[in-house]
Amino acid sequence: MTVEQLAQGIRAQDRGTLARALTLVESQLPGHRQQARQLLKLLGSPAQPGQRIGVTGPPGAGKSTLIESLGLLALEKGERVGVLAIDPSSQKTGGSILGDKTRMEQLSRQPQAYVRPSPAAGALGGVARRTREAILLLEAAGYTSIWVETVGVGQSEVAVASLVDTVLLVALPGAGDDLQGMKRGLMETADVVWVNKADSERMPAARLTANQMSLALRLLPSRTAHWTAPVLQGSALERQGLDELWAKLRSHFAHLLADGGLQQMRHQQSLYWLSRGLEDRLLRNFLAQPEQAQAWHAAQARVAQGLSTPDEALDELLGG
Amino acid sequence: MTVEQLAQGIRAQDRGTLARALTLVESQLPGHRQQARQLLKLLGSPAQPGQRIGVTGPPGAGKSTLIESLGLLALEKGERVGVLAIDPSSQKTGGSILGDKTRMEQLSRQPQAYVRPSPAAGALGGVARRTREAILLLEAAGYTSIWVETVGVGQSEVAVASLVDTVLLVALPGAGDDLQGMKRGLMETADVVWVNKADSERMPAARLTANQMSLALRLLPSRTAHWTAPVLQGSALERQGLDELWAKLRSHFAHLLADGGLQQMRHQQSLYWLSRGLEDRLLRNFLAQPEQAQAWHAAQARVAQGLSTPDEALDELLGG
Repeated sequence: MTVEQLAQGIRAQDRGTLARALTLVESQLPGHRQQARQLLKLLGSPAQPGQRIGVTGPPGAGKSTLIESLGLLALEKGERVGVLAIDPSSQKTGGSILGDKTRMEQLSRQPQAYVRPSPAAGALGGVARRTREAILLLEAAGYTSIWVETVGVGQSEVAVASLVDTVLLVALPGAGDDLQGMKRGLMETADVVWVNKADSERMPAARLTANQMSLALRLLPSRTAHWTAPVLQGSALERQGLDELWAKLRSHFAHLLADGGLQQMRHQQSLYWLSRGLEDRLLRNFLAQPEQAQAWHAAQARVAQGLSTPDEALDELLGG
Repeated sequence: MTVEQLAQGIRAQDRGTLARALTLVESQLPGHRQQARQLLKLLGSPAQPGQRIGVTGPPGAGKSTLIESLGLLALEKGERVGVLAIDPSSQKTGGSILGDKTRMEQLSRQPQAYVRPSPAAGALGGVARRTREAILLLEAAGYTSIWVETVGVGQSEVAVASLVDTVLLVALPGAGDDLQGMKRGLMETADVVWVNKADSERMPAARLTANQMSLALRLLPSRTAHWTAPVLQGSALERQGLDELWAKLRSHFAHLLADGGLQQMRHQQSLYWLSRGLEDRLLRNFLAQPEQAQAWHAAQARVAQGLSTPDEALDELLGG
């Protein structure tokens, strides 16, 4: 299949071609990279930007269930829904976690929805690139509501905040100490917070958590200028409170569109990934030399044992 | 002066020699770097680790006044006090900000205190290295209580958290919205929080702020394992509440010493700076080639204007 045929199939919203193209951007082979570049160039950007929503939160918060429920709701509102998962951790755990997590059976059966059945796992830099390119492919295929679920335990939340327009943090009802399980910076990257599993029994706990989080959020700098993250509660499983949540997600996007913040944010994200990408590639090229990789591991061991300061080790490695 | 003479003078706690050595580690000249490396190797580590305290907080919170007051208190407790400032911003602003900020006249007149009268300004990587080496020099000169003030508006808070044992966050009395001025992650890198300028008039506001911050801190992950950051209030200028603050800072250090967390934290910090250092140097070496620097700036411009994706630009820059 030529790159032109791929582009044509994607624009025609052919699912099989889209799947092929997604596999292509996941490949590291130089030939594939070149084809992927050509394909993305051919496809360009959609005339109307769709909303890219990242979903973060601790394991077990119900992120997949929420995406499925919200995705079905988005379909009712006339959106076309694409779902990706991002997992910057080892290939091994990435696969097994996903088995449980992102099946979303109901949503994936819908003709206007596309759920990518494997996460972008691996090192952060590569994962971010593949996710970024997958977003562009989904948008070219006419998906207007793109969801990126964070699966990994690594830096996926920080990464996803640099890949999407709106960050939805999913939390669980529970008193203060339970939230300590959250990773650093999670609250500060949230645009909308959802306290999930707030069914009748857990409603009092959910309300308490929501109040505490509102308070904390007021004290923290917000991700989006002139936007204070609202905290909502409900149940994704019982589909309670989802209309209000959907409205908040849309009003965040409207806020970004209204003051020109969307294009600015996306450009800043691109510049961020450009810098990160250069650092990543220079490091990869350096470590591609076996003797340099060996010297690097020796330097790390010396520093870990307190035998060298970081700067001594670097001076020895690269010359002072 | 030979490296051996420098080491001897530092161990003999000679202030002039210490000043010379501090200037040496600030130099970028290859010959100086080599001498600095030799000197640090000769000096080694002190038998008993001293406490390294970083002081963060928004501009105008009174960080310098607090360090001066706490420094004088530490002298009374038998400590020898060294003070550094870190400013990862432009050389220009660094100098002028400092003029106001870190004079600490009373403290610097004390024979058992040493206030380094210029900040480590410049790019983050270099600043961190110089600050790290300056800490080691002060410790070799017998200073047991090392204070690092964050002066810059850049990433100094994140950097300082990777350089010290204890992070003291200084805040001002004021309702929720005022704290929005704080940078991202500031709360989460705090081990002890001090609401400053809580004199009689501002006491109610200070109490409110302290309560809100306590609540927020309980919701956020803590910097030190098994440690919840206490929030205290008082006035550095009127020397109110400082005994309690000093006791909290010391008990944080005792907590680190008790469970072996101190060595572990310092080794992790070293590994962090080793990785950051390698990335920084590879980038510097890459950009040292004029034609590569030029291509890089062109790539940034294309990405900023939306003409290339970050990955296209990188592929063109480095080969796909």
